[in-house]
Parts: sequence; structure tokens; C-alpha cells
Amino acid sequence: MSPHDRVLAFCTAWSGRDIEAVISSLSSDIEYHNIPMEPLSGIHAVEPYLRTAMDLFESCRLEILHIAANGEFVLTERMDRMVHQGRVITLPNMGIFRVRDDRICEWRDYFDLALYRAQFGSEN
Amino acid sequence: MSPHDRVLAFCTAWSGRDIEAVISSLSSDIEYHNIPMEPLSGIHAVEPYLRTAMDLFESCRLEILHIAANGEFVLTERMDRMVHQGRVITLPNMGIFRVRDDRICEWRDYFDLALYRAQFGSEN
Repeated sequence: MSPHDRVLAFCTAWSGRDIEAVISSLSSDIEYHNIPMEPLSGIHAVEPYLRTAMDLFESCRLEILHIAANGEFVLTERMDRMVHQGRVITLPNMGIFRVRDDRICEWRDYFDLALYRAQFGSEN
Repeated sequence: MSPHDRVLAFCTAWSGRDIEAVISSLSSDIEYHNIPMEPLSGIHAVEPYLRTAMDLFESCRLEILHIAANGEFVLTERMDRMVHQGRVITLPNMGIFRVRDDRICEWRDYFDLALYRAQFGSEN
């Protein structure tokens, strides 16, 4: 699978609530960074974080607006749409993924944290 | 010039404080959106905003970390480094550009506004 297609499959797995496919898309040395927050290093740190995130939302759709690949790197512009306790959260963002040996080994998302928190309604 | 090279030249013009080259890279119907802030439509709105921004900083370097193009769209991961009254502001961000007829007609940057404001030291 190309890096481009790996990222598409990863986003589709989120939208389909397939947490096992999400986790198995990541390398053991995954570096995950929601840029306004602290980075997480390694699957042992990232996996529980993502499982908690998946459980937090009734749905979590990663809608890709634009995507472009350059070697191992895949850059996306997205509109993420989460539902939490019946409330819809829409988060415009861009994310970059590095894919090595068909696994995502770097993932960084850029967004305005205040915009997320204002919709979520708490300091989560 | 390819869309990819147009965006490179645009970022180089910022770093070189060449505001005329910055402005002439944009189409008359440019749509510019710093995502956490209000969008600006048309060169008559965008030009004065960018001239003020250029004047605000002693230097403003748009360092491209990664870049990928897909047709008219060019996606970047950047570290923007501004100097304001001797103080260095570093702003991790991603931006997407749409290039049509060798002019940038869409530009959206995604970043955490609080991170910028905390470094700038005011509500600007």
C-alpha cells in the first residue's frame, strides 16, 4: 500500500470506529503530536490514548478535504467531525503523516485548541 | 512556474522581506484564512493586512519543513519564525495554498492561536 493509501485507510478506520485497524496501522516507534499538546512517543503511550479517544466519541469522522504525498510524507487538510454526548464538534485541521514500511511512524495534527475546547465544553 | 515552485518563491519572498513579491504572487480574488481568525476575501482586504504584518516584524521567516503538491494544491508543514521588538516568536503550523494561473488564490494556515499570543505578549 502506498503512503497515500495507508493514510486514507487510517482515516477510514477512524470513521468506521475500527480501533484495531487504527492501532495496527502504527509502527511501534510511532511519534504522535497534537501540536498544541504534549507529544506522545511509542505505541505503548499512543495506543491507550487513541483507545480512550475512540471511546470518548459516539462517532469520529476524519474527512479529508485535500491530500498530497511526497515520498514517505503525506499531508492532509481535514475537517474532523466528532460527536460527544450527542453534541457535534467540528475541528478544521491539517495533519502530516510519515509512512515507513507500510506503518505510520509520525503523525502531527495542527489546529486551534481553544476552538476544540469551546465546542467540547470542558478542559479535555 | 509550478504550483510547488510558486509556493516556495512566496515563502522566500516573506523571508527576504520582499512585500512587493508577496503581493504580486496573489490573485485579485485571493481567499486568505488564518483558521483561528476571520477569513479575508480579495486582494483589497488581504494586501493591507499583509503589509501591516510585514511591518510588524523585524523579520519573518517561513521555514518549510515538508511540502507536497497535488494539482493546484500545495500543502506545507512549516516553522514560522518572526521577530517582534527583538523577541523571537516561533509558530509551528501547516498551510495549504491553491495556485491558479501562477497566482495563489487560496491560502489557509492552521495553528494554535494561544501559542502565538503567548509569545507575542498581547492580543494581536
